[in-house]
Amino acid sequence: MASENAEKVDLSLNTVSDTKPKKEWINLSLRVLSFFATASATLIMALNKQTKTLVVATIGTTPLTITLTAKFLHTPAFIFFVIVNGIVSLYNLVVIAMDILGPHYDYKGLRLGLTAILDVMAMAVAASGDGAATFMAEVGRNGNSHAKWEKICDKFEAYCNRSGVALATSFLGIILLLVVTVMSITKLSKLNRI
Amino acid sequence: MASENAEKVDLSLNTVSDTKPKKEWINLSLRVLSFFATASATLIMALNKQTKTLVVATIGTTPLTITLTAKFLHTPAFIFFVIVNGIVSLYNLVVIAMDILGPHYDYKGLRLGLTAILDVMAMAVAASGDGAATFMAEVGRNGNSHAKWEKICDKFEAYCNRSGVALATSFLGIILLLVVTVMSITKLSKLNRI
Repeated sequence: MASENAEKVDLSLNTVSDTKPKKEWINLSLRVLSFFATASATLIMALNKQTKTLVVATIGTTPLTITLTAKFLHTPAFIFFVIVNGIVSLYNLVVIAMDILGPHYDYKGLRLGLTAILDVMAMAVAASGDGAATFMAEVGRNGNSHAKWEKICDKFEAYCNRSGVALATSFLGIILLLVVTVMSITKLSKLNRI
Repeated sequence: MASENAEKVDLSLNTVSDTKPKKEWINLSLRVLSFFATASATLIMALNKQTKTLVVATIGTTPLTITLTAKFLHTPAFIFFVIVNGIVSLYNLVVIAMDILGPHYDYKGLRLGLTAILDVMAMAVAASGDGAATFMAEVGRNGNSHAKWEKICDKFEAYCNRSGVALATSFLGIILLLVVTVMSITKLSKLNRI
């Protein structure tokens, strides 16, 4: 009981002096991770390409083949995914740079609020890209019998798997950005109550 | 000069007493509009259905027909859209109810921050639903020649148009929710600097 009380006192002291820089470090680290996640997602999806040669007929003993290529440029949802993840990565990079350059670029304590607002926008845009790409990948995986859209992942297994990795990475990036945003808003709320 | 000073005094008084409730009214109104937008989007998409009878062959003089139905349940992205818009509508309804019931439900000024955080999550989820449904609708409208997915909007014109209306309405709802969130964060930042 006594140690609990001591901890409480410690915590309240921390909020004023020590925890602030520490929390800012956590915040910055999460943003760096978020940047790497969305940047990886952008690259994995953008560089994802699979070429497959299929035998469509045999003339005598000579097989007649066609070569099909699957790449992100063939699917508007994936193009959107790459653009959106690229933008969010760049945005995160700018914020990280300004964080490291320090408080010189802060104008009357506006930066925290402004970053929170831009974070929200970045997250909404990234979420829409992820939603689009995920459901497009689902059609690629399962097809849609009602629309007579056949699945393509049986032909382009590696392409589909890499797209899945890009999606998972981007989701991770968004979740990290969400945590950063929640931390910013919590900080704004807390400063309020002090 | 004297009147200018009087105005300044007036303004500073306003920030304490009058302006705050006015902004809260704007905030509440925007949220109500956002609620109606996402609720409409949910209903339009959920009730959207088109049945079409196509002649597939003619035996003698008797046409052989099949009846095709297009509805949101046939497309996972549209199901996700309906669920997500429904959740966001309900969430907005709860926040509106608590806003009207007044500050009794506020615990140590936590509500503004908490609502902002939940708004951010609601917006991210809604954005992913909108992204998914938009790009699925795009395939419905244009098809995808690379994947050999044929467009279906030429057969189900009315269905596609109503889906488009649902999408536009939902986008409006998200943008209004974004404005509300930005206002909340701005308010938190401003309170900070006072």
